[in-house]
Amino acid sequence: MARSPAWASRPKTRGLVLDVIRAARSISRVELAAATGLTGATISEVVRELLGDGLVVEAGRGAPTGGKPRTLVQLNPTARYGVGVHLERNTCVIVVVDLAGRPVARTSFQGVASLPPERALPMVAAQVDALLTTAAVERGKVLGVGLVSYGPQDRGAGVLLTPQPTEEWRDHPVAPRLAEHLGLPVLLDNDAAAAAIGEYWLGAVEPHSTYGCIYMATGIGGGVVVGGEVYRGSSSNTAEIGHISIDVHGDDCPCGNVGCLENYAGPSALVRQALETPGLARRLALDPAADNFLTEFARIAAAANAGDTEARALVERSARYLGHAAVTLAVLFDLDLIVLAGQSFAVAGSTYQAVIQQELDRRLFSRRAHPVRVVPSVNGSDAAAIGGAVLVLQSELTLGRGRPEDGPRPVPAGAAEAP
Amino acid sequence: MARSPAWASRPKTRGLVLDVIRAARSISRVELAAATGLTGATISEVVRELLGDGLVVEAGRGAPTGGKPRTLVQLNPTARYGVGVHLERNTCVIVVVDLAGRPVARTSFQGVASLPPERALPMVAAQVDALLTTAAVERGKVLGVGLVSYGPQDRGAGVLLTPQPTEEWRDHPVAPRLAEHLGLPVLLDNDAAAAAIGEYWLGAVEPHSTYGCIYMATGIGGGVVVGGEVYRGSSSNTAEIGHISIDVHGDDCPCGNVGCLENYAGPSALVRQALETPGLARRLALDPAADNFLTEFARIAAAANAGDTEARALVERSARYLGHAAVTLAVLFDLDLIVLAGQSFAVAGSTYQAVIQQELDRRLFSRRAHPVRVVPSVNGSDAAAIGGAVLVLQSELTLGRGRPEDGPRPVPAGAAEAP
Repeated sequence: MARSPAWASRPKTRGLVLDVIRAARSISRVELAAATGLTGATISEVVRELLGDGLVVEAGRGAPTGGKPRTLVQLNPTARYGVGVHLERNTCVIVVVDLAGRPVARTSFQGVASLPPERALPMVAAQVDALLTTAAVERGKVLGVGLVSYGPQDRGAGVLLTPQPTEEWRDHPVAPRLAEHLGLPVLLDNDAAAAAIGEYWLGAVEPHSTYGCIYMATGIGGGVVVGGEVYRGSSSNTAEIGHISIDVHGDDCPCGNVGCLENYAGPSALVRQALETPGLARRLALDPAADNFLTEFARIAAAANAGDTEARALVERSARYLGHAAVTLAVLFDLDLIVLAGQSFAVAGSTYQAVIQQELDRRLFSRRAHPVRVVPSVNGSDAAAIGGAVLVLQSELTLGRGRPEDGPRPVPAGAAEAP
Repeated sequence: MARSPAWASRPKTRGLVLDVIRAARSISRVELAAATGLTGATISEVVRELLGDGLVVEAGRGAPTGGKPRTLVQLNPTARYGVGVHLERNTCVIVVVDLAGRPVARTSFQGVASLPPERALPMVAAQVDALLTTAAVERGKVLGVGLVSYGPQDRGAGVLLTPQPTEEWRDHPVAPRLAEHLGLPVLLDNDAAAAAIGEYWLGAVEPHSTYGCIYMATGIGGGVVVGGEVYRGSSSNTAEIGHISIDVHGDDCPCGNVGCLENYAGPSALVRQALETPGLARRLALDPAADNFLTEFARIAAAANAGDTEARALVERSARYLGHAAVTLAVLFDLDLIVLAGQSFAVAGSTYQAVIQQELDRRLFSRRAHPVRVVPSVNGSDAAAIGGAVLVLQSELTLGRGRPEDGPRPVPAGAAEAP
């Protein structure tokens, strides 16, 4: 289809306008032109299209300015939906979010890791279908599924690159297969990156902020967002802070590195350290054979919050190690904000935030330039799943696909590999 | 001036086309359209403008394809020039580069740190003028000056934020003042970031590469380039690897952090360690009172290369610590390449490259995704100065200034602050 040069960049233009409307919550056409640098004619045309597609609606009038009253536009939250599917070791969390990124339905279930992908993925698909039905969401309004997980991935092909949760999952085309089962596009991405972008979409961070997200559930991951987009590096395997070295003289890690953060901080390390503290282990009747150490972690954190001295000391030390890594992340990426997301931060309360903030305040090389704030995620435990859904919304609506370097598209249903 | 929507993005379009011509060395209009995704009509118009401005020239014909022979275009290297001024502690290096980024003239002088900026900057300006005259470069073709230095900066205001080289330099408007003396735009930037982008402009890296540069002269700095642009973070104070912690149990550093890389590796640490090795210190007659420890560093490196066992052990250990930090940089930024630049790498020979490559090969978490190569800079000791000149070329010609978020413009002569 021949297009005049005037609209050669339309997907990016549309995407930019929609993203500014999203961030502003409601905005006039005049303000849109000022914010985007686009001409009034372009704004009128793009807004007309967005109104026609139902993505935005007119929404009252702005404050009187002495001239003609300005009609405001805003997102129409029920115009489109995204689905987030978060695979976290043995748990699967599914959320449906509206165009504004707000969850409208949620479910979770155990046992994913004990099934091979050929049996787990149809089960996940059935859960997604059931949730959409329960939430009475029209299938035609669902843009796709963001499937998010941890560890190295090949986003383009939609495969996990490590034997997690089991060997059978490695290199299995999880995104294409789930897309086939659902008849919806599916994109694969990193859980921490997803959690990071969720903050942006929901307006919890300044639009032009450069921020990092430390994501702690079972392990520790990270993501960085620059100008409203996830920092991708060369292969979208970025900010894996769980496996950076905080101690050059530390122990070898199975990952190949030495003195890795996850062996010092994080839930499994904390539980191990608590088991090595006889008084504490006895008081909490910690179970060394517990399948799910997240339960033991939550109990140690609760004890710390209730005032148990030994528990508190372990949690604070864990937080200092995390703060140490947060300093490295902030220095290298020149961040102005760090968000703490994921269920382990959610259950552990405010100790992590307070101690990490202390470490940043004390140790930042560039603190003469600007401070770095630490805040909890607005999305708490479901940050990764919500972020997965947001990645789909962003991918389909606001990133703009004018050029190939905009990145892989979600894998459409029926395709073996992403284009 | 009213512009039709078709050309609302012209600066970015021109910049993109020019950058593709630069990278390709010579290219036909058909190939340009394919590479950029722009229409043939747009390409023809933009190339006509670039030919008219003298930035590109026609350059013979491409290989026969059976159809009409394709005329090639290429950069006209003598169309424009950039000047790089590198302030490194007490030394100032000045280079003039052509549009292709190739140095056409160079000078250096000592003593910058022993003068207050009010006296040093006019001296620098006089040296720039003299060099341009010597090189017979038309003033009208000089796009501006890239002034590069180390440590935290406020690029927008053109000031250094730390008392380096002396307290009088902190917060002095170095870029605006130099611009006034020269009657040329001056931008301020980081030496390691400059060294990094120099590789890109000269075509020493793949255009879509995500790579890091470790820059070692007196201290250790870093820069990251993504898609042909320096990664800026929130304030352009990024990748300061000299002051990331490699040892959570290490000593406090004056910068506020603990176990900083520069206290383990790098020229001053190596000289200190050599002075603490009696046999070596005696053999090399190392001078503990030496003003310029770079001379002592070069002698230790030369001894190591000549086979001195103790010197070799120190250099290799220093390289392992650097490799350790390189792993962190590569993991967090998801790099596919690391470039080693700066005079200390240049004098020390290939040991650093070999050992850092070993560390990366051994320790990378994401090595299942892709390996990371380590290469020496094509620009060696003058990488920062050359990079400073390249930053001006890029800023003025290929980054495109369609929107405010494209970053600060060079400070024009006569302005107290960048817009």
